[in-house]
Amino acid sequence: MQEPGWTNDPLSILIGAISQEEFFAAYYEQKALLHDHNNPEQFADLLSITRVDDIIASSELPPASLDMARKEPPIKRSYFTFKNGNIDRGAVIRHYQQGATIILNQLHLADKKLATFVRALENVFSTHVQTNVYLTPPNSQGFSTHYDDHDVFILQIKGEKIWRLYRKPIDNPYRGESFKSGEYEVGDIEKEFILKAGDCIYIPRGMMHDAESHGEDPSLHITVGLLVKKWADLMLEAMSEVALRHPKFRRSIPPGFARENFDKQKAAKVFTELVEEFKTEANFEEVFTFFKESFIRFRGPDVSGSLVEASKAMEPSDKYVRRTNSQVLLRCSDKESIIICGGGNIHFGLEAYSGLETAMSGESFTMADFKGIELEEAEDIIRKLNAFGLVKKIKE
Amino acid sequence: MQEPGWTNDPLSILIGAISQEEFFAAYYEQKALLHDHNNPEQFADLLSITRVDDIIASSELPPASLDMARKEPPIKRSYFTFKNGNIDRGAVIRHYQQGATIILNQLHLADKKLATFVRALENVFSTHVQTNVYLTPPNSQGFSTHYDDHDVFILQIKGEKIWRLYRKPIDNPYRGESFKSGEYEVGDIEKEFILKAGDCIYIPRGMMHDAESHGEDPSLHITVGLLVKKWADLMLEAMSEVALRHPKFRRSIPPGFARENFDKQKAAKVFTELVEEFKTEANFEEVFTFFKESFIRFRGPDVSGSLVEASKAMEPSDKYVRRTNSQVLLRCSDKESIIICGGGNIHFGLEAYSGLETAMSGESFTMADFKGIELEEAEDIIRKLNAFGLVKKIKE
Repeated sequence: MQEPGWTNDPLSILIGAISQEEFFAAYYEQKALLHDHNNPEQFADLLSITRVDDIIASSELPPASLDMARKEPPIKRSYFTFKNGNIDRGAVIRHYQQGATIILNQLHLADKKLATFVRALENVFSTHVQTNVYLTPPNSQGFSTHYDDHDVFILQIKGEKIWRLYRKPIDNPYRGESFKSGEYEVGDIEKEFILKAGDCIYIPRGMMHDAESHGEDPSLHITVGLLVKKWADLMLEAMSEVALRHPKFRRSIPPGFARENFDKQKAAKVFTELVEEFKTEANFEEVFTFFKESFIRFRGPDVSGSLVEASKAMEPSDKYVRRTNSQVLLRCSDKESIIICGGGNIHFGLEAYSGLETAMSGESFTMADFKGIELEEAEDIIRKLNAFGLVKKIKE
Repeated sequence: MQEPGWTNDPLSILIGAISQEEFFAAYYEQKALLHDHNNPEQFADLLSITRVDDIIASSELPPASLDMARKEPPIKRSYFTFKNGNIDRGAVIRHYQQGATIILNQLHLADKKLATFVRALENVFSTHVQTNVYLTPPNSQGFSTHYDDHDVFILQIKGEKIWRLYRKPIDNPYRGESFKSGEYEVGDIEKEFILKAGDCIYIPRGMMHDAESHGEDPSLHITVGLLVKKWADLMLEAMSEVALRHPKFRRSIPPGFARENFDKQKAAKVFTELVEEFKTEANFEEVFTFFKESFIRFRGPDVSGSLVEASKAMEPSDKYVRRTNSQVLLRCSDKESIIICGGGNIHFGLEAYSGLETAMSGESFTMADFKGIELEEAEDIIRKLNAFGLVKKIKE
């Protein structure tokens, strides 16, 4: 079975003709990139108005998953929720008829295709990825000019919108530098274009932008957000890591430091010493590994089909393969083999290590690949890998 | 009017014969220090069982302000609170009769003397100080061996307790290193003594300790906690400050960094560059000033008597003086004079600067000390200083 492009090569689907190398070198975190696919069906398989209809009618729809927006007259949450906070589905559709945009927050949490797409992008970027979906009725107003504090790809699914890009008042905004209304001058339009169905635009964080609906059709788009870890986050972690090893960093700053007659020369000297000590002691390997493991542990595993498999008998001839876009780190201590994956650590015996290497290699494998292990035990290991969404059975 | 010792020289009241220099050099954050005052009345003026009786009977007593503890049988919060969370004062006294300890958390928030004492200590240490009060009935069990993650002074007010000190499993515990039950071996007793009324013990954070009641009388003690900022906090702030000035720190860590085939050599090089850049760019002055101003802004002002003054007429001959232990920073920009103090910034005209210098000098002053300013305006400046608890009228 051929997997769709957004599973195997999700970035190319977004940026098109430009190579990944060029994207990362010349655009990523720097410049906007418009990809005019000239194919209205480019993203049609990913989401549709029919699917949004289905989600609003038949999914659980917890309060945080849906929002609405309209420029004039503004819309309040109470207009489309019941007193207990639950979504009033009828009111949602009624307000959509009256010009309000429907926003489905974090839709990848409730939609299998978007979840697969997000998982694929997370594997490319090694970052947390989210999807928010916007369905805007025809002839309705857009949103005010602002910048986001994370990079986004806008995938236009249906209809079209006029987009305008402006300057970056802040280069890669960091903590506490989120957009505040009225604080920045918008300045001149630097780019204006119609985003048509099938087109995609990448907008780096910090770049001001706005959009309004265009044409007679409703507009449906997905905003894919990249919630990246910054170098500053890693450097702060490196500082904390040094502090945990070196008691000097854990001593109090000088008693009385805020007094008017406090002589800060000695404190300045300690500061210089600690900066020097940080330089000597900062441990890239330790912190990089910590970030890598944390990132992988917080991914959501793909267990689709795992329950069906778990309900069936296994045969020694059954072939398995690691799931596309599952992220793992295989480790071994002197006592056990460990797979770090979405959800945490899974533990195995030491003797399973070489079999696990084969299983995680991406090549197909069977129970017999767990060499030196009884078939029964190998079966249980594969069941465990299946349960946590790491492998799946190959259907032949 | 003579101010009590715990206003003018609060640290000496605690550590006694040892000089402040010796305390900070040899004990602070390192070793316990027992001060046997041999004077049961040493702290009698600060707090008494009668005062605790009064607080329980006649103060507001919000739910968070009171807790109870008993080793066996354990006591639950529901035993001494109503369904709406309010304290059941009768039940508190009944459970005290039945062997439970009454804990008054953060009592300095509700008690004027403790507030004054705390303010004085905050001025010595330049750190946030808190007081928790423990009233234990006779013949009751103590608490389990543990360490605190902040330094404490224990002031025994009434009765006595047996204290035992053990080793420090962690030298100056930092974030995430709070005591966890069962994680540390207690080890041998390193010091055992009876803390009698009027005695005081300093225990550095990280040092294991326990105590149990002793003798036929109830025990009343104040635990003064120093919630210090550590050098690591300042270094982390320094890193954030550099990150805000240097976009390099705000770029994402490399896309794909968690992938199995990721080549981390380039990332390691960037890390080294950023460590070097931090060394060059780390700004002690900036961060030290930020910590100083933040500390002072978050102090609680002492406005006692200010309302009485505000209800009276002022005479040009009235003398004022800066309040003991009020903490301020006097600044001027090209447009105004600013006093940074507990609660935030207070703004004055530029022409008030030299008068404010006199007012904050600690010497007495009158309206006439605001040279070149109309008496009426000088009166309003003094009223403003009085309102925010910075000065008080000298009673002659």
